[in-house]
This record gives sequence, structure tokens and C-alpha cells, in this order.
Amino acid sequence: MRLSGAQGNMEQFKVKDPDFEKRVRDSFARQGFMDFIGAQITAVEPGYCEIQIPYRHELTQQHGYFHAGIIGTVADNVGGYAAFTLMEATSSILTVEYKINFLSPGRGELLIGRGRVIKPGKTITLCRCDVFVIDNAVERHCAAAQMTLMNMQNAPDAPQHMKP
Amino acid sequence: MRLSGAQGNMEQFKVKDPDFEKRVRDSFARQGFMDFIGAQITAVEPGYCEIQIPYRHELTQQHGYFHAGIIGTVADNVGGYAAFTLMEATSSILTVEYKINFLSPGRGELLIGRGRVIKPGKTITLCRCDVFVIDNAVERHCAAAQMTLMNMQNAPDAPQHMKP
Amino acid sequence: MRLSGAQGNMEQFKVKDPDFEKRVRDSFARQGFMDFIGAQITAVEPGYCEIQIPYRHELTQQHGYFHAGIIGTVADNVGGYAAFTLMEATSSILTVEYKINFLSPGRGELLIGRGRVIKPGKTITLCRCDVFVIDNAVERHCAAAQMTLMNMQNAPDAPQHMKP
Amino acid sequence: MRLSGAQGNMEQFKVKDPDFEKRVRDSFARQGFMDFIGAQITAVEPGYCEIQIPYRHELTQQHGYFHAGIIGTVADNVGGYAAFTLMEATSSILTVEYKINFLSPGRGELLIGRGRVIKPGKTITLCRCDVFVIDNAVERHCAAAQMTLMNMQNAPDAPQHMKP
Repeated sequence: MRLSGAQGNMEQFKVKDPDFEKRVRDSFARQGFMDFIGAQITAVEPGYCEIQIPYRHELTQQHGYFHAGIIGTVADNVGGYAAFTLMEATSSILTVEYKINFLSPGRGELLIGRGRVIKPGKTITLCRCDVFVIDNAVERHCAAAQMTLMNMQNAPDAPQHMKP
Repeated sequence: MRLSGAQGNMEQFKVKDPDFEKRVRDSFARQGFMDFIGAQITAVEPGYCEIQIPYRHELTQQHGYFHAGIIGTVADNVGGYAAFTLMEATSSILTVEYKINFLSPGRGELLIGRGRVIKPGKTITLCRCDVFVIDNAVERHCAAAQMTLMNMQNAPDAPQHMKP
Repeated sequence: MRLSGAQGNMEQFKVKDPDFEKRVRDSFARQGFMDFIGAQITAVEPGYCEIQIPYRHELTQQHGYFHAGIIGTVADNVGGYAAFTLMEATSSILTVEYKINFLSPGRGELLIGRGRVIKPGKTITLCRCDVFVIDNAVERHCAAAQMTLMNMQNAPDAPQHMKP
Repeated sequence: MRLSGAQGNMEQFKVKDPDFEKRVRDSFARQGFMDFIGAQITAVEPGYCEIQIPYRHELTQQHGYFHAGIIGTVADNVGGYAAFTLMEATSSILTVEYKINFLSPGRGELLIGRGRVIKPGKTITLCRCDVFVIDNAVERHCAAAQMTLMNMQNAPDAPQHMKP
């Protein structure tokens, strides 16, 4: 299931950096935490990002389900990278805040987060994110988030010494 | 620094279960994710909970600071367990939602989360949580959250088969 | 523009009270504040509600645009009544909380709020709401909200003495 | 009751404009909506603002209590003006977003909102706001909000033509 945003269908966002996908995937690869929890980035499109995390005992809360912190992490990251796809090559991105509702227990074998830009802006970008859990091959809506991102211009995401 | 809640000073909450601290610590110990990220519960009082996480590379975002997902995890857990201190022995707790603002980068050697109940309720409890980062021995306010918890009565947090 | 919810298209919600539209409109009519600010309910469907408010100087902030408080009021009400359409005849509804982002100034001649249920629940229902402003006949996305509602069973919305 | 913020006690904020109180009160006076609903600004201090609204039938929801939209309006305004006290004379302020929890019904004769800055920033300021209702002379905590404000530099709040 691919959800549409507030716009009903993915509006055609203008990309400022044609290499946005590489920029997103490179940034993701530098997040030690993503590797640690086994997260993979499974889709990057203008204004859209998808991340998946397979179940492991290390990611659980007290009932053995995906921990809310993992669900929030996924929501945060798909929203941040969805917004990041639309930024200039020389910008980095900052999560100002997000709000997340937990709709059903994180019980299942795979977590899928989908973030989409609702309104891009020069400084502030709004995203809505949804997290689903695959439980015995059935997808269930697990969490819904709304988040505010800030474009930090002239502050490249990649460390300078990593640049050729 | 111990922050006060909306009440200006920690109001005297009535505890329904005298064994609340054991109940909170047992539940925390069953969360595989807490062990995985090296989180420790450092204070449990009526309507209050504190958790600490030392820095590790595995917990970082792309700039090498604590990942927002870890900061959100801490906020979620201290709020949840602060509320849990005031519940009946036979209740479990559900995070309905939270909202978190990121106030400064998670750069430092230790993360400290402090959650406190603002208004306990039969069904719905409101908490405010603050996360601090210790950076070269100086404490900085890193994130501020407000969260809604739900009391699930007659649904014990501990698995039945673990009971004597 | 009719926005779809997280479900991509309005899923077929099951209505528990066939008289839901009358119940919603009656409740709306009892809100003194709606009459005071000139709000009209312009659509009521299962899991959906739309409200419109024409511009008046009395509804403005310091720059002469619709006040954020009015925009928030519209978001709150369309979300609340969207959820209310799916409840039993004997229930009333409580806004637990909402979060709203302001995307562009409330400058224009008409405010339109659209609320839709994302996930109905026995106790907790989640809605997403969007507010648009019509500015010289062009619709602009003005605010986006996400809200948590609670079903108060056996607590009818209408005062008992109004019943025949 | 005067609530303290996350800092436990009101930290000494540095004021950039010594005429901040006049600037806040002038801006408030230009909001047509505040006059319309009978709101009065009852305190303005560095990083702090208080607003009161007496009960009137025109401000009610379907049960005759203060409408959530009015409660949200108060929260929004006290937070915005608390942040505005700390800004430059040449800045205006923008509400990026807020989140509000409703803790008890708005039943009573007077609504009091109190907003305080938790963390001021060059661009982004965080406030926490609390709304109380006076019910038969007893104060009850009615709503709790957390909000994000943005400093719009070199964009004076007052219309240019109003300046001498």
C-alpha cells in the first residue's frame, strides 16, 4: 500500500539537486544507529522516503513487540529524508519537532515507515509519516506522525573531510 | 538540575501500588531495546522517572551525535514509566501519542531523560518529559516532550507465565 | 480539492448510528461559539466533516488575517465531528489533544476545514485535518493537524432535557 | 498559582527591546479577535504572558462550557506573546505549530492562560503554555500546550503606516 499525502496524490515536487538520492543514501549510511538496528532505506523519491526494519528481539518493549522508540525512529527518519530530497546540495536538515500517534501494537515481522512532504518551504517543511507493521504477511497501520523540518542552508550534511 | 512540572513543584501523588518501583524496574528489564542501547533507569519516584544512556557510536546520526530516535526513545520511556508509577498493580500502560521538540544537538557523553506526570487520570495521564545531554560535564536542554498515556486496566504488564 | 486520508482513498467506514448526520448537525447547532464566528457545517459523511467560515474583521490577528485561534478551532471541530459520525447514538466525544502546523498566513475571504478519520477505535480515534484559505478564489493549504479523540460511551452528547 | 517552566524557576531572560511590554500590548490590541471574545492581557514579563477571558455563552461548545477553540486560542496567544517579549523591536513572530492536551472540561467563569518561554532561540523559540479555568473560585488545570515559534527578523509586527 502506498499512501497519498494531504495532496491526495503525490504532487510533482521540484528537485533542486539532481543527485538527491545519492545524497540521502550517503547520509543514511553515516547514521551508526541505522546500521545498529538493521534499518534499510527501501525507496527514495522526490518528497518521499521509505525505510524498513526486520524484527529482532533487541528492538522490543516489554511485551516482545517493536519498541515505540524504534517506531518513532523510523517515523523521524523517513520524514527527515523525505524533506531532504527536496533540499539544495549544500543544505543539511534539522528536525524541529514531531508528533506521533501509536495506533496499534508493533507486533509483527517487519516495520515499514513511509514519509512524504506535505508542504516544502524555503525554511520550514512539513511532512506526514506513517509506520506499518507486517504481521503474518498482513500490513497494519501502526503509527501516524506529523513533523516539522528546518532547512539549514550552507551547512552541508556530509563532513567536509569526506568530500573528495 | 531537577525540573519541576507544570505544578511548579512535584505535587504529592497518591500511589495505588506500594510496589510501584519494583513493577517499573521489572518492566524496564523486560525491554530488550533498553539493554541493547545501554539505557539504565536511574530514578523512580511517584509520578517521576529518570533514564540515562552513555554515548556510543552505535547510537548516532550522520554527524556523530545522539540520534533523534534515541532521544525520542528516552522521552517516551521516562514519560511512560512516570505514569506507570501511579497505576494499579494490575494495569499496563499504553503510549497514545507524544510530541517532541529538539532544542539543541545531541552532542555529548551522556543523555538524561526526566519524565514527570502533569495530570494523572483514571484513563488518560499527561506527562511532560525533558531530555538533557551532558557535554563536557555541562548539562544542556536537548529535547522537550509532552505525551498522552492510557491506563489499560486489568491487563498486567508482566506476562502471566512469569508470575509465581 | 478533496484530500484523501492516510488510506489513500476514503475507506468505507461502518456507521453505527444511521442518524449520524442529524446527530452531528444538532451538536454543531448547540455550540454557541460556531454561531458567534459565523461557521457553517458544509459536509457530513462517514468519517468526514467540512466546515466553512467567511472572513470578518472580528476573526483577525494583528495583520488582519484569520487568527490562528480560528484556524485551530476549525481544525478541532472538523476532526471532532468526523470522528463523531462513526460513534454510537449514545456516545459523546472528547478531544484528548491535537497538534497543528500553520503552513501559510490565513489571508483570504473564506476558511475551509476538512477533517477525516484515519483510524477509528472503540476508545481512541485518530483524525487528520487540513484547513484551507480561499484567497481571491485560489485555495491555499493553510494548516495541517493531527488529533486524538476519545469515545465517551453512554454519555449522550445532547442534554437529556432536550430529548422528547 | 504561577507555574514554573521546565527550568524550575523563571530563568532570567535577556530582553533585546526595553519597550517589549508596549510592543506586546499594541500587537494584542490590533487583534480584532481578542476584542471580539473579550480577552484581556493581564501580565507581560520577559518570557511570560498571561491572558484572561470571562465566560460568555458565545464562547461555548455543545455542553455550555468554554469551546476547545477558545482554549486553544488562549494557549496560542500566551505562547506567542511570551516569545514576542524576547524579540527585537524589528521582528514579528510566527506560530510554526503547537500541540495541546485538554485535561478537564472548560467549565467555569473565567479562563486564564499562562505562556512561558522554555528555550529562546535566534530563529526558533519553544514555549509551554497552560490554561486554567476558574470554577466557583477554584482553579483547575484545563489544558497544556507546547508550541514552536519562529522569529521573523526585519519584519515589524506593526503595519508601517501606523508608525508616526
